[in-house]
Amino acid sequence: MTPEAIIETLKTLVDTDKVRTDSESLTTWGKDWTKQFEPAPLAIVFPKSTEQVQALVRFANEHKLALTPSGGRTGLSAAAVAANGEIVVSFDYMNRILDFNAYDRTVTCQPGVVTAQLQQYAEEQGLYYPVDFASAGSSQIGGNIGTNAGGIKVIRYGMTRNWVAGLKVVTGAGELLELNKGLIKNATGYDLRQLFIGAEGTLGFVVEATMRLERAPKNLTAMVLGTPDFDSIMPVLHAFQGKLDLTAFEFFSDKAMAKIMDRGDVPAPFETDCAFYALLEFEAVSEEIANQALETFEYCVEQGWVLDGVMSQSEQQLQNLWKLREFISETISHWTPYKNDISVTISQVPAFLRDIDAVVGEHYPDFEIVWFGHIGDGNLHLNILKPDAMPKEEFFAKCASVNQWVFEIVQRYNGSISAEHGMGMTKRDYLGYSRSAEEIAVMKAVKAVFDPNGIMNPGKIFPA
Amino acid sequence: MTPEAIIETLKTLVDTDKVRTDSESLTTWGKDWTKQFEPAPLAIVFPKSTEQVQALVRFANEHKLALTPSGGRTGLSAAAVAANGEIVVSFDYMNRILDFNAYDRTVTCQPGVVTAQLQQYAEEQGLYYPVDFASAGSSQIGGNIGTNAGGIKVIRYGMTRNWVAGLKVVTGAGELLELNKGLIKNATGYDLRQLFIGAEGTLGFVVEATMRLERAPKNLTAMVLGTPDFDSIMPVLHAFQGKLDLTAFEFFSDKAMAKIMDRGDVPAPFETDCAFYALLEFEAVSEEIANQALETFEYCVEQGWVLDGVMSQSEQQLQNLWKLREFISETISHWTPYKNDISVTISQVPAFLRDIDAVVGEHYPDFEIVWFGHIGDGNLHLNILKPDAMPKEEFFAKCASVNQWVFEIVQRYNGSISAEHGMGMTKRDYLGYSRSAEEIAVMKAVKAVFDPNGIMNPGKIFPA
Repeated sequence: MTPEAIIETLKTLVDTDKVRTDSESLTTWGKDWTKQFEPAPLAIVFPKSTEQVQALVRFANEHKLALTPSGGRTGLSAAAVAANGEIVVSFDYMNRILDFNAYDRTVTCQPGVVTAQLQQYAEEQGLYYPVDFASAGSSQIGGNIGTNAGGIKVIRYGMTRNWVAGLKVVTGAGELLELNKGLIKNATGYDLRQLFIGAEGTLGFVVEATMRLERAPKNLTAMVLGTPDFDSIMPVLHAFQGKLDLTAFEFFSDKAMAKIMDRGDVPAPFETDCAFYALLEFEAVSEEIANQALETFEYCVEQGWVLDGVMSQSEQQLQNLWKLREFISETISHWTPYKNDISVTISQVPAFLRDIDAVVGEHYPDFEIVWFGHIGDGNLHLNILKPDAMPKEEFFAKCASVNQWVFEIVQRYNGSISAEHGMGMTKRDYLGYSRSAEEIAVMKAVKAVFDPNGIMNPGKIFPA
Repeated sequence: MTPEAIIETLKTLVDTDKVRTDSESLTTWGKDWTKQFEPAPLAIVFPKSTEQVQALVRFANEHKLALTPSGGRTGLSAAAVAANGEIVVSFDYMNRILDFNAYDRTVTCQPGVVTAQLQQYAEEQGLYYPVDFASAGSSQIGGNIGTNAGGIKVIRYGMTRNWVAGLKVVTGAGELLELNKGLIKNATGYDLRQLFIGAEGTLGFVVEATMRLERAPKNLTAMVLGTPDFDSIMPVLHAFQGKLDLTAFEFFSDKAMAKIMDRGDVPAPFETDCAFYALLEFEAVSEEIANQALETFEYCVEQGWVLDGVMSQSEQQLQNLWKLREFISETISHWTPYKNDISVTISQVPAFLRDIDAVVGEHYPDFEIVWFGHIGDGNLHLNILKPDAMPKEEFFAKCASVNQWVFEIVQRYNGSISAEHGMGMTKRDYLGYSRSAEEIAVMKAVKAVFDPNGIMNPGKIFPA
């Protein structure tokens, strides 16, 4: 079938005006937030119904055409990049909230609903959708499910996985499956829903999702604590976790803090200079709880784990403390950083971080490393800033070897080479550092069950 | 291979004295708590290591021998019954706690660790393992994982699934897979761990599990509330859930209450006779919270949803209130009841319950129905008591048609024919009432990936 004939047929499968092939559209919908791969899709299609999605999948199967799912395109692993003539299936026009049930605390969405839209909708019902992260304003629920999105509240609320009560999916074979139907308890065989969460669109398309909502948090209160070294952060986490239900426990280094201070628009939390900072958050539901937080803070100071600290006393102060952490990514983007999103078990974080610091420092002493991340769940974001004088090409060539060293260390610590961004194309060739050959073989066989012709987002997750 | 030769070979694969073929052992380890099927295993083997489990699986594959996993044998779906000459693989001698990490709040167990042993161990570390149910004193972690055990705290803590941080499994093909390695965030492809949770031993054996622990609950406080009808329970749940983080929300009918009162050893919660009762529990971490509970109670009384109620003021009172709910199963066992464990979404419970009452009442007006269950998660336990005068055979023959009616109603409500007990053999032939033909076909294909020769617990989950 010629490309022209394919495009003509696509126009019969979705609404005629919902097939785009102009070069601007191909570029826009052919990629996510990564820049490593050139987008080169054949066409972009915008289905408006489950039936249209099924028709697309059936057509793709007949002619062995590759389909790439596209949500808010905020991914950081190139899982939504169509670099090889794929047909991009965008869910921008399947973006309605279909149902809400107050007793079940569930909301049924089409996959194109934007995360912030769901958060807002939940708020309007007096409830809360707790998965939150920097790109919530653009990312879509379907994409969140595809990457099992995490973010800043995982320590309390878990990943997207925890909030998926039911999924309707169109498999790579074109079958519509209704998985788990919004139930809480359901012991009727394998929970296939779980396979689609984090599958990066390689098994099929999510065409409807029933998401759980939660009680809205009350009187969120943050503390920022300065520590003399990284190791001290661990007993601080442990001490607070023993006393309070933390809704977040983030960390960042003095280098990150310095960059934020240089902006000039975020107030310093306190005067004392510290090597590392922890930002923790909890619901101060009563004075008793707030006092427990202060007592634990004092205890940590006595132990020498904390040098200085501050607790928010207002919504404004809460927001300001969060800016210290949330502005880091945007602020350091100026130095076109090498980034890596990795995880180990919490207890291993200090040694792990030291090992990576050592190997990078040994080879590239002039590289500046900026650490931050969600230490409450073992997820570290490693950022290496490009020295101003170094050309981009040289910097990224050197960082290719950093990748290798980092993943070798991850493997030694039994960690994950992708904590929350997925494998996509950026990490697929390193899959073996986190999953055994036997696991990878099983994963491929599982994919073949759902997608026998391999049309669903080929080239993602698995090594090329 | 003759049975004798098989048994001789088994003795070379596990410790010689860890193969039993005496009739008492065959009966004891050949069944679970169900009585519907006669146990008829070939032998019982007790491996002591992962290597021995692998050797057993390899041998079984070579000779196409069926293996049935056996834990605490407290299952209620005959998933652990060996009725067809299977080799029962018991984990009674793989029952050690291997590791604990305070920072990660994880404990690594062999599958034969008893639930109560894990709960006790957690308590000794100042932590909490929150999955709890009547058979916790005998059930094993491996079995809990196999059925994705739920119980009485699911509204707050979720199912066993939520507490599994990592699994080592031996697949039906004999491969050892190390799944998720205790990580919180891990976006490296399909989460195969999830497939083994709730698989009832049909994909492979769990040989090690890393389980998460939680902060111990503080000052647990219970309320028992009497309602004029079932429908009133729903707004009561909704009102309390809006104000408090409930750790349980159970219900039972006046008939259940009457049976408990007849025992004579449990104090009545209050004088007023009510049609239904709700038992809710929360952490009264501050006086404020306790007051909110009382205010909500008063609000529910004003609305006419609650006729009377009581709140525990001591540990002893808490225990006594829980007896009202926890003693039901044992108390009604005197009437050799027909039992069914089903679920729908919470909001549909009242209509669903009415429909089942109607169909049973219409055909068998002399049957006494006793309802209780975990209404906070949509899980109902239907119990029909045998009329004293009716012979057992006649009663169970009549109940066979009850099964059919109940499952038809479950299907109409998009519910689950097994909320938390699994499919095993008791429900396998009804699987189609909860899962579509397409889903069942996919499930079978997924099973074939892990267990190509079909040696793992054959005859379970899938229709015969």
